This record gives sequence, C-alpha cells and structure tokens, in this order.
Amino acid sequence: MKLATLKNARRDGQLVVVSRDLSRCVAVPEIAFTMQQLLDNWADLSPKAEAVYDALNRDTVDGEQAFDQAQCESPLPRAYQWADGSAYVNHVELVRKARHSEMPPSFWTDPLMYQGGSDDFIGPRDAIVASSTDYGIDFEGEIAVITDDVPMAITPEDALNKIRLVMLVNDVSLRGLIPNELAKGFGFFQSKPSSSFSPVAVTPEELGDHWQEGKLHLPLLSTYNGKLFGKPNAGVDMTFNFGQLIAHAAKTRRLGAGAVIGSGTVSNKQGTEHGSTVEEGGVGYSCIAEIRMIETIRDGKPVTQFMQFGDTIRMEVLDEQGQSLFGAIDQQVIEYKS
Amino acid sequence: MKLATLKNARRDGQLVVVSRDLSRCVAVPEIAFTMQQLLDNWADLSPKAEAVYDALNRDTVDGEQAFDQAQCESPLPRAYQWADGSAYVNHVELVRKARHSEMPPSFWTDPLMYQGGSDDFIGPRDAIVASSTDYGIDFEGEIAVITDDVPMAITPEDALNKIRLVMLVNDVSLRGLIPNELAKGFGFFQSKPSSSFSPVAVTPEELGDHWQEGKLHLPLLSTYNGKLFGKPNAGVDMTFNFGQLIAHAAKTRRLGAGAVIGSGTVSNKQGTEHGSTVEEGGVGYSCIAEIRMIETIRDGKPVTQFMQFGDTIRMEVLDEQGQSLFGAIDQQVIEYKS
Repeated sequence: MKLATLKNARRDGQLVVVSRDLSRCVAVPEIAFTMQQLLDNWADLSPKAEAVYDALNRDTVDGEQAFDQAQCESPLPRAYQWADGSAYVNHVELVRKARHSEMPPSFWTDPLMYQGGSDDFIGPRDAIVASSTDYGIDFEGEIAVITDDVPMAITPEDALNKIRLVMLVNDVSLRGLIPNELAKGFGFFQSKPSSSFSPVAVTPEELGDHWQEGKLHLPLLSTYNGKLFGKPNAGVDMTFNFGQLIAHAAKTRRLGAGAVIGSGTVSNKQGTEHGSTVEEGGVGYSCIAEIRMIETIRDGKPVTQFMQFGDTIRMEVLDEQGQSLFGAIDQQVIEYKS
Repeated sequence: MKLATLKNARRDGQLVVVSRDLSRCVAVPEIAFTMQQLLDNWADLSPKAEAVYDALNRDTVDGEQAFDQAQCESPLPRAYQWADGSAYVNHVELVRKARHSEMPPSFWTDPLMYQGGSDDFIGPRDAIVASSTDYGIDFEGEIAVITDDVPMAITPEDALNKIRLVMLVNDVSLRGLIPNELAKGFGFFQSKPSSSFSPVAVTPEELGDHWQEGKLHLPLLSTYNGKLFGKPNAGVDMTFNFGQLIAHAAKTRRLGAGAVIGSGTVSNKQGTEHGSTVEEGGVGYSCIAEIRMIETIRDGKPVTQFMQFGDTIRMEVLDEQGQSLFGAIDQQVIEYKS
C-alpha cells in the first residue's frame, strides 16, 4: 500500500491512498482523516485502506483525483517521535574525520542515534529556510520507517514486525553549528532544523523483494542542482538494520504508534577506502560533508561548498523499471526573512 | 485557568477544566476533546475555556465531577516536541563535577538544551518502570512550559508571550547510561526514559505574581520516600528564563503549538558553594545526583544510592496558603517485566 498526506488548511493534512504508479489518489475519510489516526488504529484500519488501494490500482474509484506530489505534506506533517540512527558507519567515520574526531570501535556494534525534533516537519517540496549560509547547510539523504506501538526492551527480530511504513528523508544539517553543539555534550539541536520526507510512504509488503532483513535494497538517488550527486544502495553497508535501530530506541522506553526512525545518511564504501564520486565512476554520496572529506584527504582541503541560497536538492528511489517508489523530495534553499 | 487531561480509553485522554482549588473539574467537548486540540486553536478556544473556568470557580456547573489527580494523564499524554534546558547552571556544574568533566564558561551565557522524546509521556501517578537499578535511576524536578506556535528566530522577549501553560515535570534520568551516551557525542537517548508532568497545567496569568520575567517564583518540593528532599525556589538561580530557552530552541526552526520546554533541574546555590541538604537547614536538591556530588566533595565518595524498586518520589508546588497549584507528581519505581 502507498499513502500520502495532502496539504489542506489543517496542521495534519489530509490522508490519501495513492495508486502504485503515483498517478492517482483518493481521500478515505470513512477510514481516517489523517495519517496519525490510521497509525493509531493500524490493525483495525489498515485492511480497509488496503482494500481501497487494491480497488484504486484495478480501476477508477469514486472521489479519486490526480496525485500531485507538489501538494504533499510529509506523510506525517508532525510526529510524536523522530529518532535518527547512523547505520551507515562509513558515513560516521568520514564525518568524524572531517571534524578531526576519532571514531570509537564500539560504533560498529552499538548504534549511534540522536533524538530529533518532530513538531514541524516540512513538506517534500517545501523550501529549506535558513538565516545564513554560514551555518553550513547540508542535505542528508536517508531511509526512514514509521512504527506501530513498540514495547520497551523489544528484540531486534520482533522490532522488524513493528514497521508499518517506509519513506525517504532529507535530514538537513547545519554543519557549522555542529561542533559547538557537540562540544556542549547534549547532542544536536539548533544544528538539526526541520526535516522533510518523501511524498509517499510505502508498506514493507508493497516493496516486495526490495525490502529484506529490515533494509531497502535499492539506490537512493540524490540530485544536487540538477546533477546526479549520489546513488549509493541503501541495502549495502548498512551496519544496523531497522530492527536493530528500533530496538536501540526502545531499550528503556516504549515507542508510540507513528514513531519515525531514520537510518542515517546512506553511504557505500564501494570496496575503496571511502567510496568515490559519480564523476569518477563511483556511486557518490548522500550529503556534501562526505565529498568535502574526500577532498580534504586528497587535496588537503575541501573545495565543494555547502548549500547556497537558490540551490536545489532532489532525492528519489527508482525500481528496476524506472518507476519512482516514494515520489521525490525536491527542495530549494532560501533565505529566512522575519 | 487550570487544565488537566483525564485517562480514558484513548491515547490523548479527555481534556478537563479544573477548579482553582483542584477539587472539581468538567469536560468541555463543545470546546475541545483534547489538550492538543485546544493548543492547536488557542486564540479561538481558550477564551471559551476561560469562561468555563470562571463559572466553575463561582458555582457548580453542569457535568462537573470531583477532580481525582490519580486519574490524570500528563496534561499532554504525548506531544510533538519536548526540549529540556539546563537553566539552573548550579545543577549542571555539580553534575559535571560528578562526572569529572569541566564546565565551559560559555554555559553561563549559551543555554544547554537537549532534544527529548515526547511520544510516550507517562501520567503523574504512573510507575517509573525500569529493567535494572544498575541504570542509576534518578528523579529530576523541573518546571516546564507549553508554547503556542513560535516563529523561527524569535527574540527572548517575544518568546515570553508564546507561553500558554506552566507545569511541573519529573525528567527521570538513568545516570548509569549517561557517560557512555555522552561519550558517543549524540546526546541523551536511552538515558532519558519517559517523563511525567504534574496533573494540572496552569496559565501564566493564573499564577499572578508567582510568574515574573519568565520564571516561577515558588519552591519546588521534592519528597523522596516520604521525606522532604528539596525545596529550592524555582525563581532563584535560574540563569536563563523561559523566554531565553524558547528562543534558543527556535533559533533555526519553528516550534509547533504544544511544544513543551523544560527548565532543567531546579537548583539553588543558597550562598554556599553548592547548596546544602534540608537536614542541614538548606533547601536541599531536586535530584539524587546533586547530593551524591556533595557527599563526594565532603566524604570522598557518594553514599546516597540512586532509586531502588519500591522507592517513591513526590513533586509539588504550594502557594503561601499551602494550596497545591499544579497537583502532585507521585511515582513509584517498579521493575520492568516483559
């Protein structure tokens, strides 16, 4: 099943069921008005939504409309939980080298995860608004899942069965603010502004063979200012799968239905020390910080700038037939005006 | 105005308006079913709720019932944002000394704040459930506010006008898990299980002279296993007021209506180096970690244990007439059984 949330005059938007090919959609107010309502009652309501999904894929249905990704909120416009892991340890290693900070060996066995803010996600086509490019604005392409209720101390294996939906996420980071925040010891806050998610959230079942062992086995395409910047496979070099990430988040507490758990920036080693760019024949990267690190290693200093006002970033996952599975995040950076 | 949320069969509970003396309450489904609904439309709906509050204080009203704090959820049983500052820098200094970690001077000018998890707050009389006392279970008594929508880059002065409700919070910490998490550099996660809030949330206007310059000017009473453990004044030694804390949280992003911002553990220096216990004639502390630090300074090692299964913690604020303003958090620690 594929689901999305259309913008309307309300904070939580309008839940719609989306056709497999992303061409059409239909609101289902008789089932749930919002994505959170559906997640709050998933066991009862999702079979009804699945029935609408099947009907929509077979034929036209009453009330259907063209599906316009530009009218989408993130699938959850606001959520009660957003916890972001760093499962692609290659990325962590690179970013820490860029900060001249050693990576402890435990990072290969104990997942890194930060508690994100979830009260104000922005839509997949909404602008990334920042007060200054001095903040070091960077995109970060990731996979995320939405869970059902998760009991405390769940095992990684059982946690895999709590995944209800899969999405893409652009977890924007303000790199210039990170060193000071991390030095304070309380983690990220100002350095992590509002994230955006793909227009469409997809059930693991719908992903078929592309979803195996709690990982999405397809390339995440990041296109920066119209040029392909990265195509790493999200199923490769993911040290911790989503079951492990959820279990980590739930070690000392329950997670409520609708909790969003992120993978961290998708990154492939490609059999080299740290991967290589698309131009060099590699799979490239899902954030600017990684290429700056490569430049530092190779040339002594980074030359690629972080994002400037007017820059655009597009993120998408295509199947083997070139069909977009989640729709595309496509955002422009603009200057904040009070 | 005083508001609370009663437990019912639903995730967000039942909003009620509570009488000034906390003896009676009435549901207001004609205004809002839940606290979040009221906060989402505060400008339109709060005058209607205020009218009910006035009527309830004057006389009996249709549908009123006895107010039972034991039936309460936290005012927001789940929220979209929970950001906790450390405004009582005395506390930060002590806790860091206990961790043998120097406090940078910038901590007196740049607020510390961590991003908390908000998907599963527990009720003010719900048990604190933990898998092991080896985690170093500690209570932390704090003040918290709930905001309206807050624009990005708001000033501290303007932020004061975005405060809609004031509460108490027990921000439970698992001290034993903190050093490892902070060493990883991503802040708290497993070391901060579910928080609970006072039964009643109160508007700043209702607090009158006790609310000045974005601070609550009354002692926070913490009673540990039936014995008064702390009574520091929340208006004293609060280095950053709630306007400054909200502005810090909103520097690079908006905050959504219903965002919960915490003060950090209330702590008074009392003209001594680090305060003193109630037994010694001082105002005591709002968490166990502080008294353990005092013991370390005085005796070379801590003797007070962290919380054990069966231990109880009660937190309350009384006015000069001994009237409880927010009701009481009153929790027992119990062992997690899967």
